[in-house]
Amino acid sequence: MSVTAAQGFTAAGIAAGIKANGNPDLALVVNTGPRRAAAGVFTSNRVKAAPVLWSEQVVKGGEISAVVLNSGGANACTGPQGFQDTHATAEKVAEVLSAAGTETGAGEVAVASTGLIGILLPMDKLLPGIGTAAAELSAHGGEKAAIAIKTTDSVHKTAVAEGTGWTVGGMAKGAGMLAPGLATMLVVLTTDADVEASVLDRALRDATRQTFDRVDSDGCMSTNDTVLLLASGASHITPGYDEFAAAVRTVCDDLARQLIGDAEGASKDIRIEVINAASEDDAVEVGRSIARNNLLKCALHGEDPNWGRVLSAIGTTKAAFDPDALNVAINGVWVCKKGSVGDDRDLVDMRYREIRITADLAEGSESAVIWANDLTADYVHENSAYSS
Amino acid sequence: MSVTAAQGFTAAGIAAGIKANGNPDLALVVNTGPRRAAAGVFTSNRVKAAPVLWSEQVVKGGEISAVVLNSGGANACTGPQGFQDTHATAEKVAEVLSAAGTETGAGEVAVASTGLIGILLPMDKLLPGIGTAAAELSAHGGEKAAIAIKTTDSVHKTAVAEGTGWTVGGMAKGAGMLAPGLATMLVVLTTDADVEASVLDRALRDATRQTFDRVDSDGCMSTNDTVLLLASGASHITPGYDEFAAAVRTVCDDLARQLIGDAEGASKDIRIEVINAASEDDAVEVGRSIARNNLLKCALHGEDPNWGRVLSAIGTTKAAFDPDALNVAINGVWVCKKGSVGDDRDLVDMRYREIRITADLAEGSESAVIWANDLTADYVHENSAYSS
Repeated sequence: MSVTAAQGFTAAGIAAGIKANGNPDLALVVNTGPRRAAAGVFTSNRVKAAPVLWSEQVVKGGEISAVVLNSGGANACTGPQGFQDTHATAEKVAEVLSAAGTETGAGEVAVASTGLIGILLPMDKLLPGIGTAAAELSAHGGEKAAIAIKTTDSVHKTAVAEGTGWTVGGMAKGAGMLAPGLATMLVVLTTDADVEASVLDRALRDATRQTFDRVDSDGCMSTNDTVLLLASGASHITPGYDEFAAAVRTVCDDLARQLIGDAEGASKDIRIEVINAASEDDAVEVGRSIARNNLLKCALHGEDPNWGRVLSAIGTTKAAFDPDALNVAINGVWVCKKGSVGDDRDLVDMRYREIRITADLAEGSESAVIWANDLTADYVHENSAYSS
Repeated sequence: MSVTAAQGFTAAGIAAGIKANGNPDLALVVNTGPRRAAAGVFTSNRVKAAPVLWSEQVVKGGEISAVVLNSGGANACTGPQGFQDTHATAEKVAEVLSAAGTETGAGEVAVASTGLIGILLPMDKLLPGIGTAAAELSAHGGEKAAIAIKTTDSVHKTAVAEGTGWTVGGMAKGAGMLAPGLATMLVVLTTDADVEASVLDRALRDATRQTFDRVDSDGCMSTNDTVLLLASGASHITPGYDEFAAAVRTVCDDLARQLIGDAEGASKDIRIEVINAASEDDAVEVGRSIARNNLLKCALHGEDPNWGRVLSAIGTTKAAFDPDALNVAINGVWVCKKGSVGDDRDLVDMRYREIRITADLAEGSESAVIWANDLTADYVHENSAYSS
C-alpha cells in the first residue's frame, strides 16, 4: 500500500515538532530510480500557497527526485518569507539526500504543506526534521509517510492498483475544504512502471478530472492542493497507455472516495449521478450545484428526501433542461417525475451513510458522478472552533 | 408602515387553514386606484413555481389590481395542476372583488406563494379564504397582511419611506434560501405616487439590483421569489425619477437588512464590502464568493477572524487582483496586508451580531456591499428537521 508499494521508492514519516501536540508532521518520499519522471496537478485557486508555486515549477522539468510534505502549517498567505522557507526546505532535502549518496538538486524536490493558513512554518524544527526523516527512509515507510501528512483526518489514506509486473500506489490527506479544482488535499502517487513524464501527465490529468475534481465536500477550494505522480521505472515494464491510465484512475478513485468518507463532521456520503445530460459539462455543472446546496445538505443530514431542493439547485444552472421533464431519484425511488411529485417519498430508506441521488435531465446521453457530504452541526462545530 | 402606508390601498391577512397550526396564511392587497400601475421582478431560478409563471405574465400588462399571497405551500414543482390552482386563485380574487364593486379581471391579479415545495395547495381552504380576506380588507390591514405571509420568519417585516406628499411602503417575508437573483422572499411594495408602469419597472430594477440581489444568506436560490411594486396614484403627485427611485431603494434596503437579520439559525449578520475593484461586477463576484464560503461562515460563527478563508474565497473568482496585493479588514482591523499577515488578529472584537469584512482588491475604484449570515448548528437543525 501507499507510496512504497511500487518498487524504487523509499519513504519516512516522523514528528519534527511542527505540530504542538507532538504528532507526526513531516513526510519524505524519495524516488530511487532508475527513472525519475513526474507529473503534477495543483489547486486552481488563484491564491496559491508558497509550496504550490514552488512545486509547479519543479514539475515543469518533468523530474522529481523527492517530495517533502509537512502538516501543521499550510505556508499559504505568508509572503516572500514563506516562499523563501519553501525554497530552503527543498535545498535542505537536496543537501541531505546528496550527502547520503543520492545526488539531488533542489529543483527536483517538490514541497507540499497543509494546515493553518497565514502563519510561517517553524523552520528551526522543520529543517532538522528533514535530516531525521532521511535517516529513517525505508522501502516500507509508506504508511508512516501517510500518517505524517494527516491534519484533521481521522484515518490515514492509502491505495494500490496492481498491473502485470508493475504497481501504482499512493497516499492522500484531506478532510475538509474539498471542492472542485481539487480537494484540500495532498496526494502522492508512485509507480514502478517505466513511463515518461508526458505520459504520466496525461494519465494524471485524465484521472484527476474524473475523481478528485468531482469530489465536493463543502464547496471550499484550498490554496494548497497538490497531486503528484512519480515513476521510478524499477519494474522495467512500460504498460500500454490505457492499462496504465486505468490503474492511476483506480488509485485516484479509491483515495477520492476515502476523502469523502472521512470529511469533517459529515454523517452522510452523497453520490450524485446526473444522467441524460446534453453534455458532460452540463452533467458536472448540475452535479456540483446539487452538491453545494446547503439546504439540501441539511435535509439529507436529517434523512429527509427533499427533492424540491434538488430541483431548486438544478434551476440555478445554465445546463440544458426543461423544468417539466426533470426526474429525480433518491436511493432508487423516483420521488420527482416530470418536474412534479413522483413516487411516495416514504419509500426512501435513508438510514445508511451512503445516499444516492440520480438527477435525470432528459436532454441527452451524457452523465457524471459528483461526490459530496451532508452539512451537520459537527461540521459547524469543527470549523468554528478550529482556526484553519 | 407596510403596504397600506400609501394611500389607495387596502389589505387583509387571515388564517384560511392552509397551515396546519392555524396561523395566518393568506394575505390580500388591493389597489383602489385611481391608477393601477405595477412592475415586478422574479426569481432567476429556472425552476419556477406556478405563481411566478402566472405573475410574470400579469406584470407584463403593466397593471395589477390585487395581489393574493399565501404561506403554507409554495405551489412549486406541482405540474399542470399547480398552475391551474394558481389560475383558479386569481379568478376567485377577481370574482370576489368584482362582486364587491371593484371590477377586476383575473389577468390583473398577481399570485405569490411560499412554503413547502412539491405539494399541492389545499384549494378547498384557500378559495373560501379569499372571500374571508376580501371581507376584511381595510386601509389599516397592512400589518395583518405582513403577518400572514410569514413562514419560518420570527417577525414580520415592513418598511416605509416618505416623499413630499407621497409614500412608498412595503412588506417582506423570507428567512432562508436567501441568495442572489433575489432571496427566498415575497415582497409587495406600494406607493401613492402617480407613476406609470415603465418608471416603476426601472425604479424597482435599480433598487433590487443593489439590495435584495446582494443579500446572500445561504447561497440557495428559491423557486418562488417575487417582488412587486404597485402604484395607486392616489396622491396625485408625480415625483422626479431620482427622488422616487431613492425612496423605493430605501424601502428595499430596509427590508433586505431585516431579512438578513432574521435569517434561519443565524447568529451573525455579515456585511462584506469589496473595495478598489476593477469593476462593479468584480466587486459583486468577490463579495458573493466570500459570502458563500462555508468554512468562513463557520469561523465567523465562532468569532474567529480567519482571514485566510477570505483569501481562499477571493482566489476562486475571476476578478482582477494580484494575490500579493490583497488586503482584508475584519471589524476595522487590517488582519491581512499585501496577501500576508497584517495587524494582530487578537485586536478584532467580534462579540456583536454585525461583522464587517472589507476586502481591498487594490485594482481599481469600484465597490459593492454583499450581506450574508454565518453558518450555525441552529441553521443545520432548522433545515434538517423541517421539510421545506
